Amino acid sequence: MSEVSSGAVPAAQGSPADLVRQLLDALGADLVTAGADLGTRRHCDWSGTPGADPVALIRPRSTADVSRALALCHRLGQPVVIQGGLTGLAGGANLRGGEVALSLERMSAIEEVDPVSGTITVQAGAILQRVQEAADAAGMMFPLDLGARGSCTIGGNLATNAGGNRVIRYGMAREQVLGIEAVLADGTVIGDMHKMVKNNSGYDLKQLLVGSEGTLAVITRATLKLAPRPAGLLTAWCGLPDYASVTRLLHYARAHLSGGVSAFEVMWPSYYDYVLEHVRGLRAPLDTRHAYYVLLESPASDAERDAAGFEDVLGEMLSEGVVENASIASSNADAARFWAVRDAPAEFPVLMPGLIGFDIGFSTADIGAVAAQCETMLHARWPDMTTLVYGHLGDGNLHVIAHLDDAPPDLAEQVDEAVYDLTRAWRGSVSAEHGIGSKKRAYLGHTRDAGARHAMHAIKRALDPANLLNPGKVLEPVSPSVDLPGAS
Amino acid sequence: MSEVSSGAVPAAQGSPADLVRQLLDALGADLVTAGADLGTRRHCDWSGTPGADPVALIRPRSTADVSRALALCHRLGQPVVIQGGLTGLAGGANLRGGEVALSLERMSAIEEVDPVSGTITVQAGAILQRVQEAADAAGMMFPLDLGARGSCTIGGNLATNAGGNRVIRYGMAREQVLGIEAVLADGTVIGDMHKMVKNNSGYDLKQLLVGSEGTLAVITRATLKLAPRPAGLLTAWCGLPDYASVTRLLHYARAHLSGGVSAFEVMWPSYYDYVLEHVRGLRAPLDTRHAYYVLLESPASDAERDAAGFEDVLGEMLSEGVVENASIASSNADAARFWAVRDAPAEFPVLMPGLIGFDIGFSTADIGAVAAQCETMLHARWPDMTTLVYGHLGDGNLHVIAHLDDAPPDLAEQVDEAVYDLTRAWRGSVSAEHGIGSKKRAYLGHTRDAGARHAMHAIKRALDPANLLNPGKVLEPVSPSVDLPGAS
Repeated sequence: MSEVSSGAVPAAQGSPADLVRQLLDALGADLVTAGADLGTRRHCDWSGTPGADPVALIRPRSTADVSRALALCHRLGQPVVIQGGLTGLAGGANLRGGEVALSLERMSAIEEVDPVSGTITVQAGAILQRVQEAADAAGMMFPLDLGARGSCTIGGNLATNAGGNRVIRYGMAREQVLGIEAVLADGTVIGDMHKMVKNNSGYDLKQLLVGSEGTLAVITRATLKLAPRPAGLLTAWCGLPDYASVTRLLHYARAHLSGGVSAFEVMWPSYYDYVLEHVRGLRAPLDTRHAYYVLLESPASDAERDAAGFEDVLGEMLSEGVVENASIASSNADAARFWAVRDAPAEFPVLMPGLIGFDIGFSTADIGAVAAQCETMLHARWPDMTTLVYGHLGDGNLHVIAHLDDAPPDLAEQVDEAVYDLTRAWRGSVSAEHGIGSKKRAYLGHTRDAGARHAMHAIKRALDPANLLNPGKVLEPVSPSVDLPGAS
Repeated sequence: MSEVSSGAVPAAQGSPADLVRQLLDALGADLVTAGADLGTRRHCDWSGTPGADPVALIRPRSTADVSRALALCHRLGQPVVIQGGLTGLAGGANLRGGEVALSLERMSAIEEVDPVSGTITVQAGAILQRVQEAADAAGMMFPLDLGARGSCTIGGNLATNAGGNRVIRYGMAREQVLGIEAVLADGTVIGDMHKMVKNNSGYDLKQLLVGSEGTLAVITRATLKLAPRPAGLLTAWCGLPDYASVTRLLHYARAHLSGGVSAFEVMWPSYYDYVLEHVRGLRAPLDTRHAYYVLLESPASDAERDAAGFEDVLGEMLSEGVVENASIASSNADAARFWAVRDAPAEFPVLMPGLIGFDIGFSTADIGAVAAQCETMLHARWPDMTTLVYGHLGDGNLHVIAHLDDAPPDLAEQVDEAVYDLTRAWRGSVSAEHGIGSKKRAYLGHTRDAGARHAMHAIKRALDPANLLNPGKVLEPVSPSVDLPGAS
C-alpha cells in the first residue's frame, strides 16, 4: 500500500478571505460565520491542549446541509474539524490552524422515542442529558452517563465512544447504537438508521465510525437502544485488605447479585486519603482504613428481594474476610454521600493546577500490580509528587493523577513518557475511554501494533483520501511500514 | 472514488497445476494439499447453495503460516476462501471455482482462561462447544450459543457475527470480543490481542472485521469475554391474545425480572400447530390455543428469590390478561420439553425438502404487522404454501419458512423476491443473523443504501485491493454510484 501522508494538515487553496467568501456564496450567511465575526466563542475542548480559532464556523441545520458543506470543502481541499459539546479530554475537537469548524449545535432534536422497540432517535447535536430525560419520560433509561452529561452531545459521545461509570453493566457508547447516519468527507451520506438489534447485512460501518474521533465521517443522526429503568439502586461502600479480595468481590457480586453490578469503582488509599483531606464537604463512608475501597452498585428490579440479596452478598464477603468493613446506603442521601467521594475529581483542576491525568486500561488481573508499580515508579523519580489512583475496575480502566508543586515546564512530557512506557510494558491501553485525539497521538503505537496502524491508515485514506476530516488527530502523519513474509 | 470492481472473482496467473506446485514449494506438503488429493472432503457450507472444489487446501498451524500463505497468494494474484466449521447458511464459505481454501482447523487451541480478568483466549479454529466447556470448567460461562455449537468455530462465529437464542441478554458475537488477531490479504498481521473492556485507542478494527464474512481479513485468534454462570434458569411457556400483549410481556419481564430476560422466543400459530402435528416426540406445553406463544427464560442468581420474582411477574401478567395461560417449568425436564418445541426447526429439512427459509430483522414494534402481512402475501400468491413464523422477538429477528409441495424450479427466486421486497418496504434487514454470503448478495441494497455500500466497497479496496479474500461475497461486483451535492 502506498505511504501517502494522512496526518499533516493539508493546505486549502486561496486566502482565508477567499475561502469564507466561497463558503458564504455556496451555503449562505445563515450557515456560515466568518472567523472574524465569532467574538469570544470558545473553540477548544476540556483537554487543556492548545487550539486555534477557525477560519469559519459552519452550523448546519440538516444532514443535507452537512453534505453540501463537506462536498464544498472537499472540492476546495479545505480541512474541517467537527465539534460537539467540546467536553473531550484528548484535544480531538481542537483546531490546529487553518481549519473550518463544523458544529452540530443546531441539529439537537430528539426525533422519536419508540417505547415498543425500546429505541430513541436523535440528531447528533442532542445533549446527552436531554436524551436521558426523554428516555426517562417514556419510562425507560438511556444508560450512558458521564460527568459532562449537561454539555456533551450524542455525536461526540459516539465519535469518541464515551464510557463512564456504568459501562460494566450497560457497555460503552458503541453498545448503545442500533442505527447511524453519517456524512463522508466528500459529502456522501451513509443512511444506516436502523432499529434492529440483529442486522448482519454487510460491514458494520457504525462500529467503525464510533470511536473514530471525527476522522472518518460526520455522524449526523443515530438510533439508540433504551434499557429498562431499574426500580432502584443498591449501593455500598466497602473496605478491603488486598487486591485479590477486590477481584474476588467483583466476581462474587457479578455472579450472585440478581441485578448484576452497575458500578464497581475502586479507590486506592492515595486517592481516598487525599480527597477526604482536601475536598470540602466529604464525609468518610467508613471510620476504618483499608488497602482498597470499593463503591459497589447494583440495579434493583424488586426493591425488597434485591435488597435482601445485596445484604446476603455483603454478609458472605464479610464472613469470608474478603470485605473487612462495609456500609450499605439506606437512603438516597447515603448513596449520594458515597458517590461524592468518587466524584471528587471534579475538584482536582482547582486543587492541583497543572495536574497530569491518565486514562489507561489493563486486564483486570493486572491492575493491582500496575497501579502499585506506577505509584512506586513516580515517587522514585519525583519524591514530592502527589499521585492518586482510582478506576472503573470491572472495565479494566485505571485513572492516575500526578501533581507536583513548582513543576518544571517539561514535567508533563516526562510523566507521560514514564506512564505510557509502563502501559506498553503491561500491554495496556494508552486510552481507555477518553480517546487519542491530538494529546496521545504520539503514544498510539504503545497500544496498537504496526499492522493495526497500517490498516487504520488504509481505511482513513479510503474514506477521506484528501485527509480533510479532523486532520492530524488519532493517526501519526505517515503509515507505519510493516514487514511482509517473503517480501524481499 | 474510483469504481474498481470488487465483486468478480479475479483470475490467478498460470494453470492450477502451476499454482499447486508454487504453494507446495513455498509452504510445504504439511500445509498444502492439492485439490486432486482431497478425496471426499466436504467444502460446502449448510446453505444449500452450490460450491466448487478448491484448487488446493491450505491448513496453517500458526498465524505465521497464515501470513506466509496469504502473502504468497497475494503475489500470485490467487483468490482465497476462508473456511471454519462450514455451518453457515448464506454460502459465505462456499467456493465459486478457482479459489484456494484456507481452513483454520489446525488452529483450534484454547490458549488461556483468565478467570480474574474474565477472559478466554482461543485460536480461530476452536469449536464453539469446546470454548463453552473450557469456560464452564473455570466456573464461568461463554454465553454465545447456537445449534451448530458442536461444529462451528469461533473464527466463523466472529467472521459472521453469529447470534443465537441468548442475544437479548448477552449480545451478538461482536459483543463477546475484547481482542483479535487477524491477517490482511497481503499477509500483514494485525495484533490487537487485548483483554481490556475499555480501549479507545484508534479505530476499532475488530468491530469492522467481525461480520465481514472473510472478505477483509483472516481472523486467527481472539480474546473473548466470559460472563458469570447463572445458578439456574427460570423457564415458562406462555399463551397470549395479541401482539400488543407480546411486547407488553417483553417490557414488563425485562423491567421486573431481576436477572433480566435471556430468551424471548415467539412462535406464531402457523409454526406451533405445524411442529406439534409433524415433529415426533413433542408435547404441547399448554392445552389451550392462543394467538401467540412465548418461551420466556430468565437467569437466576439466587434460586429461591429469583423463582419467587418469576412467579410474581407471570402472576401479574396473567391478572392483567396480557398472558392468557402459562406454565412454569418445575424441572430441567420441563424446560427441555418447552425448548424442544422451539428447537423443532432442526427437523424441517427432512419434513420439508426444498424449504425456503428467511432470517430477517425489523424493529420490535413492526414485527407483528410484518409477520401477518408476510403470511397473507405468501398465501395470496401461493394458496397451498405452508408458512411457519417464529423468531427472537427482543432482538427484532423473524424467521419465516415457506414450503410448497411440487414447487416449480424458480419458486425460491420468486419467494425470495417477494419476502425481501416486503423487508425493504418495512425498512428491515435481509439478514438478521446469518449474513449475506453469496445467497443474499443481490438483496444487500434492500437494507443498506448506496452511500453505505459505497463506503463498504472503499474499505474492501483499501484492505484487499486485489480482491483476493472471499471474492464475490457480501458485496455486489461494482460499487454503487452516489449523488454528491453540487457535483455537476
